[in-house]
Amino acid sequence: MIKIGIVGYGNLAKGAECAIAQNPDMALVAVFTRRSPETVKIATEDVPVYPLSKAADFADRIDVMLLCGGSATDLPEMTPEFAKHFHVIDSYDNHVRIPAHFARVDTSAKETGHLALISAGWDPGLFSLNRLYASAILPEGKDYTFWGKGVSQGHSDAVRRIDGVLDARQYTIPVEEAMEQARSGSNPELTTRQKHTRLCYVVAEDGADKTEIEKQIKTMPGYFADYDTTVEFITAEQMQQEHAGLPHGGSVIRSGVTGWSREHRQIIEYKLSLDSNPEFTGSALVACARAIFRMASRGETGCRTIFDLAPADLSAYTQDYILEHML
Amino acid sequence: MIKIGIVGYGNLAKGAECAIAQNPDMALVAVFTRRSPETVKIATEDVPVYPLSKAADFADRIDVMLLCGGSATDLPEMTPEFAKHFHVIDSYDNHVRIPAHFARVDTSAKETGHLALISAGWDPGLFSLNRLYASAILPEGKDYTFWGKGVSQGHSDAVRRIDGVLDARQYTIPVEEAMEQARSGSNPELTTRQKHTRLCYVVAEDGADKTEIEKQIKTMPGYFADYDTTVEFITAEQMQQEHAGLPHGGSVIRSGVTGWSREHRQIIEYKLSLDSNPEFTGSALVACARAIFRMASRGETGCRTIFDLAPADLSAYTQDYILEHML
Repeated sequence: MIKIGIVGYGNLAKGAECAIAQNPDMALVAVFTRRSPETVKIATEDVPVYPLSKAADFADRIDVMLLCGGSATDLPEMTPEFAKHFHVIDSYDNHVRIPAHFARVDTSAKETGHLALISAGWDPGLFSLNRLYASAILPEGKDYTFWGKGVSQGHSDAVRRIDGVLDARQYTIPVEEAMEQARSGSNPELTTRQKHTRLCYVVAEDGADKTEIEKQIKTMPGYFADYDTTVEFITAEQMQQEHAGLPHGGSVIRSGVTGWSREHRQIIEYKLSLDSNPEFTGSALVACARAIFRMASRGETGCRTIFDLAPADLSAYTQDYILEHML
Repeated sequence: MIKIGIVGYGNLAKGAECAIAQNPDMALVAVFTRRSPETVKIATEDVPVYPLSKAADFADRIDVMLLCGGSATDLPEMTPEFAKHFHVIDSYDNHVRIPAHFARVDTSAKETGHLALISAGWDPGLFSLNRLYASAILPEGKDYTFWGKGVSQGHSDAVRRIDGVLDARQYTIPVEEAMEQARSGSNPELTTRQKHTRLCYVVAEDGADKTEIEKQIKTMPGYFADYDTTVEFITAEQMQQEHAGLPHGGSVIRSGVTGWSREHRQIIEYKLSLDSNPEFTGSALVACARAIFRMASRGETGCRTIFDLAPADLSAYTQDYILEHML
C-alpha cells in the first residue's frame, strides 16, 4: 500500500481523493487544510482532516504528499517547504517560472533526501510528454497545442472580478478549421486568435450595465483582448443547471516530415476529451505518485518532471503482465 | 556523436538511415547485409556496406546497432546474438512471443554487459506506451486499438503467395462508426470484424481465374476469413502509380471513468497518420537509440522495453531547454 497525504481540499484535491479510491494499491492517510479542519467534510470515510501546521508530524506515516494548492502563490512556497519533510508532487503550471521553481524544489529536496515531482497533470504534464516524444521522433516539424472545449478557471475568475458580475463561466473553444489545418501537414502559422475563441456565460446583478460588462470582458488584456470573445448573459439557475461541470480537453499535434527530400508527412495527435478536468488531473497526479514512491524507494532524491519518469513506474501492473499484455 | 550501425537494408533500415541524417547528434557508421555488399547501394554517401559476418569486428566502433530484420525468423536469433557484441535495438512485433524473446535477449545482454531494447516502433512501441500511460491514469476503463488506413506488409505478402497473383497490396481500414463508438465513452464490445475492413488490390497473371483468387483471399484463415474483405483487380501500371507508398497509422483510445459514482467519462486518444510507415518506425528506433546510448553510458545492462525509457532520454534537447520550452 502506498500511503498518500493531500494538502488542500479544492477541486483538484477532491479529484485526487477520488482517484486514490480507484487504485487498490493506494490509501489516503489524511487531508491537511488551512481552514478549520472541523469545517472540512471529505468524501472518504474514516480519513482525518488536520490543520496544515500539523503536517510535518506525519513525515513517517505518509509516502507521498500531493500538494493541491494554486500556482500563483501557494506552490512556490509550499513545494520547497514540504519537500523538506516528504516526497511531494505538485501541479505547478506557470510555464515561464518552471525553471526557477524546479531549482528551488531540487535544492530543498536534495538537502533532506526527498524526491519531488513538479508540474504533473495534463498541461503541463501529459501534453508536455507528447510534445517531447513527438519532437524526439520527428525532429523536423512543428507543434500545435489546442485547448478545449473546456472551462478555464483562471478566465472565469477574471470575469467574476468585474463590477456587477455575480458568477461567470468561461469556455475556451478550439477553432475547428485551425485544427484541420494543423492535421493536414501544411504546417500553417497560426496566431493566438486563429486557434481559439472564448465564450463567457455571465450572471449579472439586477440593474447592472450589461453593455459595460461585455466591453470590460472583451477588452481585458492578457485574458480576452487577443481573442474573438462571445458574452452571453444567463440566470443563476441556468448557470447551476447547465454549467456546473468542469469539462476540458484539447489536442497536441506534431506535424513532421521524413524522407530524403522531406517528402513524407507524419502526423502525431494526442487528444483529451474530459468530462471532469480536476478528476482527470487528480488521476494523473495519483499515477505519478506511484512512480515517485518507487523511485524514492530506489534512493532517488531531488526534483523531477514527468520527462524523468520511466512509464512502467506509473503502472500498477507487474513487469510480467506489462510484457505479456501491454506491449 | 552517437555512432549507429544498421543490420539489414530493407524498408525499415532505409527509414532508419534517413532518420539518422535528420538527427545532428547521430552518425551512421556502417550497414551490414546478408547479401553481397557490392550489390547493396545505400543512400548515405561515404558509408560502407559490409557482410553480416564482419559485424562483430566493429564492436568498439559502434555505440548502438539497429537490427532491422524480420520478426518471424531473423530477430529471434539475431537479437540475442548481436547483444553479445553491441547495445542493440529491434522492432520485434510478434506480441505473443515477446516475453520469451525478452528473456533470451536479457540473458545474452547481461552476460556480456550490453543493453538491449526490444519491440521499438509504433505497435509495439508508441501505441503500447499510450496504452500503458492511459491505463495507469484511468485504471477503470477500456482500450481500443484501431489500425489504418494503411498497408499491411504481412497481408500483402499472404495474397502474393496465391497462384496467379503477380503483385498485391492490402490496406487495413478502420471502421469509422466503430471509432466513433469508442470515442463516445459508451464502452462498446467490438469484434475484430466490427473494427476493421480489408481492401486488396491485386495484379493477376493473364488468364488467371480471378473468381478463384478472390475466393482464396476472402477465406484465408488468420488473415482475411474474419473480416469483410474487398478485392479489386488492377493493372501493374496502376499498382506502380497509385500504390507505391507505404502509408499507415491508427488510433489508441482509452475510454475511462472517474468520480465517486463513475459519472465522468474521460477519453484519451493517440492517433498516427503516417505517409511512410517504415520511415516513421525508423525514426522511432533512432530516437530510442539515443536513450539506449545514454542509459548504457550510465552502466545499465540487460533487456528493456520502451516502458523502461525515461522520456527525457529520447530527446536531443538539454535538460534546461526541456524545462524552459517543452513542459
